[in-house]
Amino acid sequence: MAIVLGPNRYGKAETRVVRVTRDGGTHRIRDLNVSVALSGAMDEVHLTGDNAAVLPTDTQKNTVFAFAREHGIGAIEDFGLLLARHFTASQPAVAHARVEIREYGWRRIAGGHSFVRDGGEVRTALVHGGEAESVVSGLTDLVVLNSTGSEFHGFARDGYTTLEPTDDRILATAVTARWRHRGTTAGWDDSYAAARDGLLRAFAGTHSLSLQQTLYQMGRRVLTERPEICEVRLSLPNKHHFLVDLEPFGLDNDNEVYFAADRPYGLIEGTVLTDDAPAAPAAFD
Amino acid sequence: MAIVLGPNRYGKAETRVVRVTRDGGTHRIRDLNVSVALSGAMDEVHLTGDNAAVLPTDTQKNTVFAFAREHGIGAIEDFGLLLARHFTASQPAVAHARVEIREYGWRRIAGGHSFVRDGGEVRTALVHGGEAESVVSGLTDLVVLNSTGSEFHGFARDGYTTLEPTDDRILATAVTARWRHRGTTAGWDDSYAAARDGLLRAFAGTHSLSLQQTLYQMGRRVLTERPEICEVRLSLPNKHHFLVDLEPFGLDNDNEVYFAADRPYGLIEGTVLTDDAPAAPAAFD
Amino acid sequence: MAIVLGPNRYGKAETRVVRVTRDGGTHRIRDLNVSVALSGAMDEVHLTGDNAAVLPTDTQKNTVFAFAREHGIGAIEDFGLLLARHFTASQPAVAHARVEIREYGWRRIAGGHSFVRDGGEVRTALVHGGEAESVVSGLTDLVVLNSTGSEFHGFARDGYTTLEPTDDRILATAVTARWRHRGTTAGWDDSYAAARDGLLRAFAGTHSLSLQQTLYQMGRRVLTERPEICEVRLSLPNKHHFLVDLEPFGLDNDNEVYFAADRPYGLIEGTVLTDDAPAAPAAFD
Amino acid sequence: MAIVLGPNRYGKAETRVVRVTRDGGTHRIRDLNVSVALSGAMDEVHLTGDNAAVLPTDTQKNTVFAFAREHGIGAIEDFGLLLARHFTASQPAVAHARVEIREYGWRRIAGGHSFVRDGGEVRTALVHGGEAESVVSGLTDLVVLNSTGSEFHGFARDGYTTLEPTDDRILATAVTARWRHRGTTAGWDDSYAAARDGLLRAFAGTHSLSLQQTLYQMGRRVLTERPEICEVRLSLPNKHHFLVDLEPFGLDNDNEVYFAADRPYGLIEGTVLTDDAPAAPAAFD
Repeated sequence: MAIVLGPNRYGKAETRVVRVTRDGGTHRIRDLNVSVALSGAMDEVHLTGDNAAVLPTDTQKNTVFAFAREHGIGAIEDFGLLLARHFTASQPAVAHARVEIREYGWRRIAGGHSFVRDGGEVRTALVHGGEAESVVSGLTDLVVLNSTGSEFHGFARDGYTTLEPTDDRILATAVTARWRHRGTTAGWDDSYAAARDGLLRAFAGTHSLSLQQTLYQMGRRVLTERPEICEVRLSLPNKHHFLVDLEPFGLDNDNEVYFAADRPYGLIEGTVLTDDAPAAPAAFD
Repeated sequence: MAIVLGPNRYGKAETRVVRVTRDGGTHRIRDLNVSVALSGAMDEVHLTGDNAAVLPTDTQKNTVFAFAREHGIGAIEDFGLLLARHFTASQPAVAHARVEIREYGWRRIAGGHSFVRDGGEVRTALVHGGEAESVVSGLTDLVVLNSTGSEFHGFARDGYTTLEPTDDRILATAVTARWRHRGTTAGWDDSYAAARDGLLRAFAGTHSLSLQQTLYQMGRRVLTERPEICEVRLSLPNKHHFLVDLEPFGLDNDNEVYFAADRPYGLIEGTVLTDDAPAAPAAFD
Repeated sequence: MAIVLGPNRYGKAETRVVRVTRDGGTHRIRDLNVSVALSGAMDEVHLTGDNAAVLPTDTQKNTVFAFAREHGIGAIEDFGLLLARHFTASQPAVAHARVEIREYGWRRIAGGHSFVRDGGEVRTALVHGGEAESVVSGLTDLVVLNSTGSEFHGFARDGYTTLEPTDDRILATAVTARWRHRGTTAGWDDSYAAARDGLLRAFAGTHSLSLQQTLYQMGRRVLTERPEICEVRLSLPNKHHFLVDLEPFGLDNDNEVYFAADRPYGLIEGTVLTDDAPAAPAAFD
Repeated sequence: MAIVLGPNRYGKAETRVVRVTRDGGTHRIRDLNVSVALSGAMDEVHLTGDNAAVLPTDTQKNTVFAFAREHGIGAIEDFGLLLARHFTASQPAVAHARVEIREYGWRRIAGGHSFVRDGGEVRTALVHGGEAESVVSGLTDLVVLNSTGSEFHGFARDGYTTLEPTDDRILATAVTARWRHRGTTAGWDDSYAAARDGLLRAFAGTHSLSLQQTLYQMGRRVLTERPEICEVRLSLPNKHHFLVDLEPFGLDNDNEVYFAADRPYGLIEGTVLTDDAPAAPAAFD
């Protein structure tokens, strides 16, 4: 029996870069959190501490800032590809680069240079560069709620089941969605806006018999409407809103007053894809 | 030397109540986090464990839910007053009630019953009931940024000063603001919207020589425009955005690429008030 | 009616300084989070943006690092006094300095230079310097639990009360305690260790009829045992552990299986002091 | 092109169960956070909302509580196996169950029933049941620091590299480690204690030329000492401590005063395994 090194990667995580672009007095800002991870011929550094193949994580951080200046920051998918290709092309030991980006939105409030940060969902991109390029777009922390139009009944029961079926409940979740593109070029910003919009419309428009059904409809909607996308992965915590029993106080509660619970919560996770989606085993890693 | 009991209070914190109101197929939701704290003749419970004067915190929670059903939830200031008055009026031992409420906003997305949670600032209210009623409205986590129009120079220097003066920097902060009303009646929702708007306009419109100056202008704006308000307290963390030195890479950086730092941060706190503001020593406690 | 500037302060918050001291191969580390706030003759900067009286928060940060080198870091109370006195003594405009320090503990694990961070409570100090010096020591996030020896009954009831009395429950809380010293010199580290120990023994040793009673006993214990301390303030969230109803599954539950709830929670706050405690209105600000 | 359902799972996440066991007046507590995820023949619920195959997540929560009463809670690996086997054995539609458990430690402080929560690392277990059983033990948030004995030089350089080599730096990380067992029986508590201890000794005892080298030594140590373990995965954020430049203040800084940075941070991830480790593709999912 020998001990061996398995898969590994390293990089600089969470570089917070803000880029201001000026068009006369009208400014635009892009506000990113960039995480780079490199892998390749890295046995020596693990086995002996020889760093000859190791581009410092500090250099990766510098590259993020310098590229923001040299190339500007367009769509985060493009910025991710730019970085990933740079590291694999320029470093002999680096076979593979993974770039994960989170983008925080800002809305203009007045004049040309004042902004309020969108506190809602965060736009995400996960790009792999090297032997197999892939682009996954997404969002996280998009919190949505339907105050009716959700049922849950007809479920399996066993000796530990006490839940009552319901034909009218609140359905609320914090959407994390990631979708894989067929290629590495697209109108990223338009594609993002349309996918996000499709997710919202599917959530709002599905009369739901289970959160799984809603999940499937959300994924399906994106795939139906966006030919550039071949796979959608969703993670939907069921943010329970429990109807409060007000009978002890002589009050009815016809779906009016709820307790919003923290934990535990249901967690529904699933993938929806097209049957011709090209294989990309590591795209979501 | 004797040991004595000093100021004390107790209550149920962070009751998460969601209220749905239906107007035909059009629903409205109010989503609150309510914290109650009661005080009064509570020596016995501390000294001997005699709970005769102690209304359980569980009861306080029930009251929040029941009142949401009985009275509905209008402006959080009114809901806070309703609760505070209830506890002081109904419990002989309770001389004073403090009700703190945070409200999470939701935007309608489609149809009548689907919503997206506003991820931005949280609206707040702090109500004191009992011998001296007071209402403080506010908001927190309103993140704003000016990409120019901010300078900082002419400051004091000592042997530990290395900061370079600047005549153009990013100014960013996460506003926590609380403002005291002269009375206990107002058009709370309109007053809130106008105060929030005044804060934003003052932040955006002030050419800033220091964050303190901006703070003062923000408070002043609210007081100038809203006669129902007599005192504004602001807490403004200076969310530093440092210009990245790109010279080592042969690049200039004319206020384009910034590093958004987490810690440490400046913290500017201040009060702006009218000289006829009635005394209310505990309103912000 | 005129608009005026009220109380204000500014400073650098959360400077994270780590100090290594070497005694041959045996190292010691102190790991602090230091927040400075200065106040005084600061009208001009608010009203006109004239920064002549403003020592930059960047300088305050530098001072923290430089003082860690020049003076070392002993007890955080002393380090806080050192900083507070420096700012008030050296800056004409600064009448008052507030220094708040959090200290993260590390335990030596092996050899002379390897450590594991204590994940438990954080030691705190709050020092005010200037016209009225004061020192408040404390701790936060000390999570304790009694699995029996806690009752709650005999409480007030109203129409919203449904809670059942109990003579055996889990009592759990996350202690935040702060205690004021009579003077500004003490054997800080010994005093801290003894006060912490007294809090723990009082929590463990009090058969509790209410969390208020436990709070009082905790404060009383510190004051009884530590003559250098004249006031103790405690904030004790009641971290509810609810006995799970297992009857639907044919199981009893004789105080064995609990659900640890997040929100809402009770919150018990109180002050215990000696009747000869000198007035210090701002010591806890 | 058709749209199809891909991999999916659902369950109740973060059930917080506390179990008290009494041996006369001496109590023991185990404090867990349990997340269950089930998968199998779940197409119908996604496609049509037919819940016949869906055991409610509420039932899963009930089962956690009931099993804590019926079977007690021993090692979390055993509790996880018990739950996983229950769901796959009792539910025809469930082919696979994943149970993830986090355990919070408590230390006895006095008498038989008073405890202080360990604030440090959290013990973890990840169990898969069904066609292929597997057990992964682990820990997270074990924060460690070497104040010397760490170098970093000889690294790759490019046009974006400005980092200076060093032969003496602080090395600090928050260890997340997970290790796969060859089988599904072991003396879990002893195995855990020994693996944790091996990680600590390897961290402390390795003179480090890079964090990758330390990572490898940590994994190697566990595999060398524990024959029941065949694979170790480590995620080590490099918590940077930057030496502060005190020269502007006329002070040297011979590795004494550091700034502990938050973001960005290096992130080193790697797997160390034995060459005879049985394949278990999903054990870490």
